[in-house]
Amino acid sequence: MSGQATTQSRYADAAKRLREITNLEGISGLLGWDEMVMIPTGSSESRAEQKAALTSAIYDRRTDPVFGDLLSSLHQASAELDDVQKAVVRDAAKDYRRSTAVPKELAQQISRLESTAYEAWVSAKKDSDWSKFEPSLKEWVEVSKAKAKFIDPDAAPYDTLLDMYEKGMTSKRLDEIFTEVRDGVVPLLKSIKEKGTCPESDWLIGDWDLGKQAELCRSIALDLGFSLEHGRLDVSVHPFTGGTHPTDVRMTTRFKKDDLTEGLTGAIHETGHSLYEQGRNLSPDWKDLPVNVALSMGVHESQSLLWERMVGLSRPFQHYLLPKIKEYFPSFAASSPEALYLALNVVKEPSYIRVEADELTYVLHIILRYEIERGLMQGDIEVSDVPRVWNEKSRSYLGIDVPDDKTGCLQDVHFSAGLFGYFPTYFLGAAFAVQIYDAARAEIPGLEDKIAKGEFAPLKAWLNEKIHRSGSFHPSGDALMVAVTGKPLDPAVFLGYLRAKYTDIYKL
Amino acid sequence: MSGQATTQSRYADAAKRLREITNLEGISGLLGWDEMVMIPTGSSESRAEQKAALTSAIYDRRTDPVFGDLLSSLHQASAELDDVQKAVVRDAAKDYRRSTAVPKELAQQISRLESTAYEAWVSAKKDSDWSKFEPSLKEWVEVSKAKAKFIDPDAAPYDTLLDMYEKGMTSKRLDEIFTEVRDGVVPLLKSIKEKGTCPESDWLIGDWDLGKQAELCRSIALDLGFSLEHGRLDVSVHPFTGGTHPTDVRMTTRFKKDDLTEGLTGAIHETGHSLYEQGRNLSPDWKDLPVNVALSMGVHESQSLLWERMVGLSRPFQHYLLPKIKEYFPSFAASSPEALYLALNVVKEPSYIRVEADELTYVLHIILRYEIERGLMQGDIEVSDVPRVWNEKSRSYLGIDVPDDKTGCLQDVHFSAGLFGYFPTYFLGAAFAVQIYDAARAEIPGLEDKIAKGEFAPLKAWLNEKIHRSGSFHPSGDALMVAVTGKPLDPAVFLGYLRAKYTDIYKL
Repeated sequence: MSGQATTQSRYADAAKRLREITNLEGISGLLGWDEMVMIPTGSSESRAEQKAALTSAIYDRRTDPVFGDLLSSLHQASAELDDVQKAVVRDAAKDYRRSTAVPKELAQQISRLESTAYEAWVSAKKDSDWSKFEPSLKEWVEVSKAKAKFIDPDAAPYDTLLDMYEKGMTSKRLDEIFTEVRDGVVPLLKSIKEKGTCPESDWLIGDWDLGKQAELCRSIALDLGFSLEHGRLDVSVHPFTGGTHPTDVRMTTRFKKDDLTEGLTGAIHETGHSLYEQGRNLSPDWKDLPVNVALSMGVHESQSLLWERMVGLSRPFQHYLLPKIKEYFPSFAASSPEALYLALNVVKEPSYIRVEADELTYVLHIILRYEIERGLMQGDIEVSDVPRVWNEKSRSYLGIDVPDDKTGCLQDVHFSAGLFGYFPTYFLGAAFAVQIYDAARAEIPGLEDKIAKGEFAPLKAWLNEKIHRSGSFHPSGDALMVAVTGKPLDPAVFLGYLRAKYTDIYKL
Repeated sequence: MSGQATTQSRYADAAKRLREITNLEGISGLLGWDEMVMIPTGSSESRAEQKAALTSAIYDRRTDPVFGDLLSSLHQASAELDDVQKAVVRDAAKDYRRSTAVPKELAQQISRLESTAYEAWVSAKKDSDWSKFEPSLKEWVEVSKAKAKFIDPDAAPYDTLLDMYEKGMTSKRLDEIFTEVRDGVVPLLKSIKEKGTCPESDWLIGDWDLGKQAELCRSIALDLGFSLEHGRLDVSVHPFTGGTHPTDVRMTTRFKKDDLTEGLTGAIHETGHSLYEQGRNLSPDWKDLPVNVALSMGVHESQSLLWERMVGLSRPFQHYLLPKIKEYFPSFAASSPEALYLALNVVKEPSYIRVEADELTYVLHIILRYEIERGLMQGDIEVSDVPRVWNEKSRSYLGIDVPDDKTGCLQDVHFSAGLFGYFPTYFLGAAFAVQIYDAARAEIPGLEDKIAKGEFAPLKAWLNEKIHRSGSFHPSGDALMVAVTGKPLDPAVFLGYLRAKYTDIYKL
């Protein structure tokens, strides 16, 4: 009995420390939001110093050896913990290992490389000259492997990095998924290009008042369930969802004068992220503990994409959306919800640029990047070969000839920040979203009728219960999928969705 | 030589620690601003926890014994420091002593008392029942004395408390000042009431669009020199000046529909505070160190009151202000700058309430409070006697009969927070402002002509140089006055200003 009491009191001590870290990280979230939305232009230097001071205070707490010993002893006594406590200790111990495993010299080298590689990338992209970025990327491959080995000497380095963004994911599993998806999407895209009938969408381009767009999107976010009691809506140059806590979620949007759809889909996307944040479990056993953060980047993205694509771009949603748009833009030219549905889902000409891609081609952009970064980490691809491999895969997957490196392998900032393992989460979010939405449709009677009528509360409540409140309890996205949908992520579900949707739209 | 090098390297270590504390306190400033202006209503609990976590991180750094030893050794080696470094060590050592001297039990008692005394005060004020607040105030007197004795066993407790708000000030000096001021203001007020001719000001009351008031005041703040590169202007329920750093000063205003002057004078007042903050010394030897904070509450208030009263309520300023108001409110009824000057400077009927008082009666409200809190700390006044003493002094100084305790001795929140020593700074600011403005007028050729033309840059530059950039370098407000005006605070200057101004306005 006394051993158990000790374990529980040690758990309470660890939880107190973890909550203090969460609270300081909440403040860090405020600094980030403020910097994007509120800060005056002339204070960037002082803000950088404030952030450094806060980071240092957080680092002290995260790497306190007493805290490390506490977590080790709890890990050993985990039989005496309940399932939520076990998940807390599991994730806290992993975080402690990641924070302390990397030797100071390597951490400093990485910190320097973040600046120098970024500068090299900017210069290389400007001149479309890969050789200017090559040395930085070589160093990133080396230090990333070294860092991964310090964190987990037994795991493949790429898997260790992947796990930082997508808990429980492995490259073996990704290979399976991506091969199946690639082999399904490439012919579908080819078929659309060769024999599809493209719907009309020119009338989406126009001159849309920015203030009215903001009002429209605010109204939609509130209809979807965004809570102003526990959040704020603002406009910023880069749309994002941040904030300090599930009770203080701050979402921003941006709008383009000539393009109504980008602001609209962006706002619905960010609302999806926000509903995940606002829906986190606030019961005393979960609140402000690691078990209650987002499970992974991919799962977070699944929530934004579920609302953006599975809801916002769906047929039923247009019955709600069209009259809503006409409230703010009476001259809006969509002749019917069906016409709006078709126009919003046009597959653009495959673009060189990932961030301009549509739902279908986006997947191929991600697979291309995954194959390259995995190859780099495994040694199958040399850094000097990246431009050639990039261009070959662009031809083969997207059917495009990359004119130069600045529109090809130098387009993304990610490699310059050493974010190996991050890209795949963009895809995983899309695939999780399809499978989760299928489950929701099966479980919520008349879901699509409700969506058509603008009744989003049942779907939000279902997601709150199934996804949001489970936080980081499950050890992986696949485990979450099993709990929510009855099976791990299944690429066939994703492919089935794409085939059905685009066969219909393009009359294939 | 090696001893000197060691002192300088120790100084550099201390300065690094002090800057880190300053940076964390800057973040604390952001939390405070956000709470007043931006935060969603449903996140007060998480914000309280975030603030507690930050306070704890700051406390750890402020009370680190290694830091204390460093400051002691620098204090002993101060002969090897330059004057700015000496001022840094002087103020840092005092702050360290204040942070560490109070035993934990007493600090906890004070922390509890802050809540319970506030609740008792709210209830006592509501019922106008002094006996409900009396026990709390008794406890405040005891713990305040005890706290002061821990900080400085050799000083009179009230002086130690006073020094926390008004560096270098003593009750002996305040007695001199306040006696002279009281004996001058009481007959002046009597004379105004008995034989003064009150200017017309009814036309200041009206129906003023809040949005236009905000635009007007924003424009005035920018004219006076507020920098949007290094700050923000927002609207909040309680107007205040906060922010994170001299490069990020955040000022708020509020406006009343029926009263143009409150928003206007409030905005000019806060601009004065903001110019002080934005004007702080950012040279590398000063930046983010204790020498570079405001010297005292009184000196800070001198900057707001200088702009509000010496500039904003002056005759010349009305030549700038009247056309400015008419830009936003074309029907504004002031017939001339002189009429506006007279109306803005009407001495209201003495009010029971301090915060509603005018320039002249305000002083007496402060003196009354000072005499009571000093009496309480010295044991000359019992807590149970406060209502009687309050009412007697109100009769004698202000000529008013206090109807009940809620409009009398229970009106202010300050005693419930144990802020003994804070009230006098409200007066000192007013008196500093008069003397500083006299010096500015003597040194800046044609100052009042410039003000009439809306040219405020010369005055701002002069204040930057003489007051703002000297931060907390001087050991007291009197020392600052000597440096800037050639003599310590002189109550006769303040009285002379009041007599001349009101003899003229009221044709005495």
